[in-house]
Amino acid sequence: MIVTCVYVHVKPDSIGKFIEATTANHRQSVREPANLRFDLLQQADDPARFMVYEAYETVEAAAAHKETNHYFVWREIVQDMMVEPRTGIRYNILQPDTRSDW
Amino acid sequence: MIVTCVYVHVKPDSIGKFIEATTANHRQSVREPANLRFDLLQQADDPARFMVYEAYETVEAAAAHKETNHYFVWREIVQDMMVEPRTGIRYNILQPDTRSDW
Repeated sequence: MIVTCVYVHVKPDSIGKFIEATTANHRQSVREPANLRFDLLQQADDPARFMVYEAYETVEAAAAHKETNHYFVWREIVQDMMVEPRTGIRYNILQPDTRSDW
Repeated sequence: MIVTCVYVHVKPDSIGKFIEATTANHRQSVREPANLRFDLLQQADDPARFMVYEAYETVEAAAAHKETNHYFVWREIVQDMMVEPRTGIRYNILQPDTRSDW
C-alpha cells in the first residue's frame, strides 16, 4: 500500500475554483476500486497551499488513477491555477499495515 | 477536523528502532476517542525520512494527544534518533467533509 502526497500552491484568486475542481476529483477518485483515501487539505496558516493525500493499494492502482477521465478533467481545469508546478512525494505505508484498517 | 503532518528525518542506524517506537505510538494513538487517523509512512526514495499523518476531530483533541503517556514515551525514545528537529504542518480538512467518512 502506498501514499502520494501532492502539494499544490494556488494563485490567490483561484482558491475557490481549485477547491471546487479538486472536490469533484475527490468524489470520483474515492470510487476507484483500489483507492484507500483521497483527502483534500488546506494549509492552516496559508489558504493558498493544499495537500492531497492519495492512498492506493498498489503502485499500479496509483498509476491507473492518472489514466482516469476525472483526473484528466481535473488536470485541465487546474493547470493555470498554480503559482508553481505541483510536487508529489511517494511513501510506503507502514501503519496501519492491514487493508481493513483503511 | 484537522490534520498535522509530522516530518521526521532519522539517523540511518536508528531506522528500525524509530519504526518500532512509532508503531507503538500509532497503536495507542488510534484508540484516542477523537483520533481519526495516525498513519506512519516511510518515504519511498529515502528510507530515513518518515511522515506521520495525524488526523483529529478538533484542534483541542490534537493538543490532548501531546498530553498522553504514549506521546511522552515516544518523544523520549526517539529524541536522539533524529538528524534534525522534526517539523509539523497543520491543515484544515476539506474532504472528506463528514465524520463518518473518516
